[in-house]
Amino acid sequence: MSNVEPWKLSLRDAADAIRAGTLKSEALAEACLDRIARTEDLNCVVAVDRGQALSAARAADAAVAAGRELGPLHGVPLGHKDMFYRAGRASDCGTTIRRGFVPDHTSAALERLDWAGALDIARLHMSEFAMGPSGHNAHLGRCRNPWNPDYITGGSSSGSGAAVAARLVFGALGSDTGGSVRLPAAMCGVVGLKPTQGRISRYGIMPLSESLDCVGPLARTVRDVARLMDVLAGYDPRDTGTVAAPVSDYEAGLDRAGGQRLDGVRIGVPTSFYFDGIDAEVANRVEEAMRVLEGLGAVLSDVPLPDHDQIAELANVTFTPEAAMLHLPWLRERPDDYGPQVRARLLQGLVIPATAYLQAKSLRGVLLKSMLEGPFAQCDALVTPMLGTPAPTGAETDVAAGEGMAAVVGKLAHMTRPVSYLGLPALSMPAGFTSNGLPTAIQLIGKPFAEATLLGIGDAYEQATHWTEHAPPL
Amino acid sequence: MSNVEPWKLSLRDAADAIRAGTLKSEALAEACLDRIARTEDLNCVVAVDRGQALSAARAADAAVAAGRELGPLHGVPLGHKDMFYRAGRASDCGTTIRRGFVPDHTSAALERLDWAGALDIARLHMSEFAMGPSGHNAHLGRCRNPWNPDYITGGSSSGSGAAVAARLVFGALGSDTGGSVRLPAAMCGVVGLKPTQGRISRYGIMPLSESLDCVGPLARTVRDVARLMDVLAGYDPRDTGTVAAPVSDYEAGLDRAGGQRLDGVRIGVPTSFYFDGIDAEVANRVEEAMRVLEGLGAVLSDVPLPDHDQIAELANVTFTPEAAMLHLPWLRERPDDYGPQVRARLLQGLVIPATAYLQAKSLRGVLLKSMLEGPFAQCDALVTPMLGTPAPTGAETDVAAGEGMAAVVGKLAHMTRPVSYLGLPALSMPAGFTSNGLPTAIQLIGKPFAEATLLGIGDAYEQATHWTEHAPPL
Repeated sequence: MSNVEPWKLSLRDAADAIRAGTLKSEALAEACLDRIARTEDLNCVVAVDRGQALSAARAADAAVAAGRELGPLHGVPLGHKDMFYRAGRASDCGTTIRRGFVPDHTSAALERLDWAGALDIARLHMSEFAMGPSGHNAHLGRCRNPWNPDYITGGSSSGSGAAVAARLVFGALGSDTGGSVRLPAAMCGVVGLKPTQGRISRYGIMPLSESLDCVGPLARTVRDVARLMDVLAGYDPRDTGTVAAPVSDYEAGLDRAGGQRLDGVRIGVPTSFYFDGIDAEVANRVEEAMRVLEGLGAVLSDVPLPDHDQIAELANVTFTPEAAMLHLPWLRERPDDYGPQVRARLLQGLVIPATAYLQAKSLRGVLLKSMLEGPFAQCDALVTPMLGTPAPTGAETDVAAGEGMAAVVGKLAHMTRPVSYLGLPALSMPAGFTSNGLPTAIQLIGKPFAEATLLGIGDAYEQATHWTEHAPPL
Repeated sequence: MSNVEPWKLSLRDAADAIRAGTLKSEALAEACLDRIARTEDLNCVVAVDRGQALSAARAADAAVAAGRELGPLHGVPLGHKDMFYRAGRASDCGTTIRRGFVPDHTSAALERLDWAGALDIARLHMSEFAMGPSGHNAHLGRCRNPWNPDYITGGSSSGSGAAVAARLVFGALGSDTGGSVRLPAAMCGVVGLKPTQGRISRYGIMPLSESLDCVGPLARTVRDVARLMDVLAGYDPRDTGTVAAPVSDYEAGLDRAGGQRLDGVRIGVPTSFYFDGIDAEVANRVEEAMRVLEGLGAVLSDVPLPDHDQIAELANVTFTPEAAMLHLPWLRERPDDYGPQVRARLLQGLVIPATAYLQAKSLRGVLLKSMLEGPFAQCDALVTPMLGTPAPTGAETDVAAGEGMAAVVGKLAHMTRPVSYLGLPALSMPAGFTSNGLPTAIQLIGKPFAEATLLGIGDAYEQATHWTEHAPPL
């Protein structure tokens, strides 16, 4: 450990070093807190409690010294999107309306991380009410990309992407309703997993869309994500949307496989929607990634998809009224306390007829079935771009950019929204850089509850490419 | 058995006699088929296959003779609302649009009755698409009340109520989305149970409203209903709305209790909504029923309720868009093939905004909780009228009656719709007759999955009053 500055470690190596007694949690927390203090310009941390973080770290070190039983995340500093409730602590949810809201209960996801021994050292930036794919926020200002502050981070889990990329924390929770874990992971160059709908409890998070909300982890490597998933996944009677499907031992599965080869793994390349009209530079990166996967032994083949333009529209018809329903009281009483974009999007939800909504809900199972009987009958996973263009700048995506802005922002969630509607798991994997110096990524989409398959492909790809070892020079 | 004509038996006595070999299923089926043939004017049977019914009865008798293991309904003739699918047999659903529709699968409820050995001898009249509380049907004509053909049967399980009352079958399945089991049970003078939402699988029935549709049995006595419930209740993975709550042994529970006394049973009398503005004659019948319950040892007390006018409106906002969504293709392509009332009601569903629908759905749990923490914290069951007026005539409820009709029909489901929204179980129990000679009834409303409690109260009440022994002179 002596050769590497501890904040450069992976989550998994850091946790293992703390367990082994070769690294102090306190030293690690101090390093992270110092980095947070030095990178305030990124605007990715909403709040940090240095005293409490260090005291928790010292308690973690004392537990190691006393030989107590340690969880798999013992003493490791994490930070989370500011919508995961912790009893007695504020969760502002990126808003003015909820600023200073103090929940009386702790989210299931934080509970599980606490049980596993993790430190929770920071509340992270997010789009207002988790709406918005860019990381702009009318109340907090924009979160800045650690690779180049002129560029956006992606959203809505903007701070989670930026803080993990900047090595301020070893992992972060995000939420993904239409791409909000995957987009910041892609633009910040870290690994992000949107699990299957129902895989992780949403108890105690800010609700946005009952049908689509999904909790997911962001971290530096696939094995880090696997360790977080081992802690987070599972049934919770407090979220009736969770599913009692068996949970794999994700990390052990990767260790057994060794991440060397993908012989016989069948990966489908969609013949429609995902590659339509994408930027040539992005297309090249994805093409390179596909050649790497083939080199590892995977069998790639073209697969047709059910109509994904329809699916994207159904996702919208599902999302907007669910969000608008939750916001009705505030839309009536405090309309001016919303940012104009967020308010406009919520108001769209008021004019969707119930029959259209119910049709969208009833088609969800039908279209999932057509995915399972179509592309997923032939493949173990699909590979797509995560972004259709290089990451845009803050200026290009700012309200001041007018009409052009709407076009750029509108395209950001093109690759992610259909997956949310279908409820499928998807992994965002760093896949090199575009000529602007910003990361780009591929999306691996799996069958329901096949997170282990996606992590396996991602792990082999990561070890063949080493893209996840790149970090912004901060 | 020799003293009683076999069609006069209860379902339970008939089943037990067949098992004991003292009664032939074939003789019973013939008696029922003859009665069906003699009562065609009632218009309660849509179709009957005499040959198949008798051949099934002979097979049942052969099984008894061979000493094979027999189910609890072995050889007993039943008939069902014409919306319970049986593979290869038409289910017209009371419509022109679905006339001659032949399903490729059998409903879970029919499957379970088949396993229990029941005969399925007739498809029964119903309101068009199970919509309409009177038993009028623009395509089939009106189902007539066996007590007096000038009067309505109630709907939408019109044929189920009439056929059981007329002793054409020993029990019948109905469906209840807003009162459709309870209303015909009440007006025809038989016992009808709407179980808790999720208690009986809806797999293979004509869907109307995902949130509210409920399968329920109608029979001559409470113990008959209990035996049917023992067969019907339980989880089914093919209906994700079913609940894996434990199923009581309903009939054995009644036999153990003996139906003699209700000492210590707490029955609430709502102080709002259910008794507001009801007809004096009906109020007297309900008052008499309450005195009987007190005489059996039950403790009656007044209980306030959450706002039931709001609940009735929320039921409507839940129901109409769900029904309209299912009907969208036919509303577009075959609008003239609906009866005008049914079409008008479906069209109402098109203008409900998704946010209003989602609010109604989200308030469902809140209002159920307020029922459990309010009235049901003090009582084991509630007693209410089933009907606010004596049963009306066919003429009073016919389209020809104009505005007056709308008012009469609109009131019919007043007592039943809030219970459907809340998802609670409710038992309709015959409670004597009004001066027009038609039956009236009380409604016993229970806590979720407390069907056994309702059946226990109903059984004691039945044995004290003997109302269920009255049958129309046919």
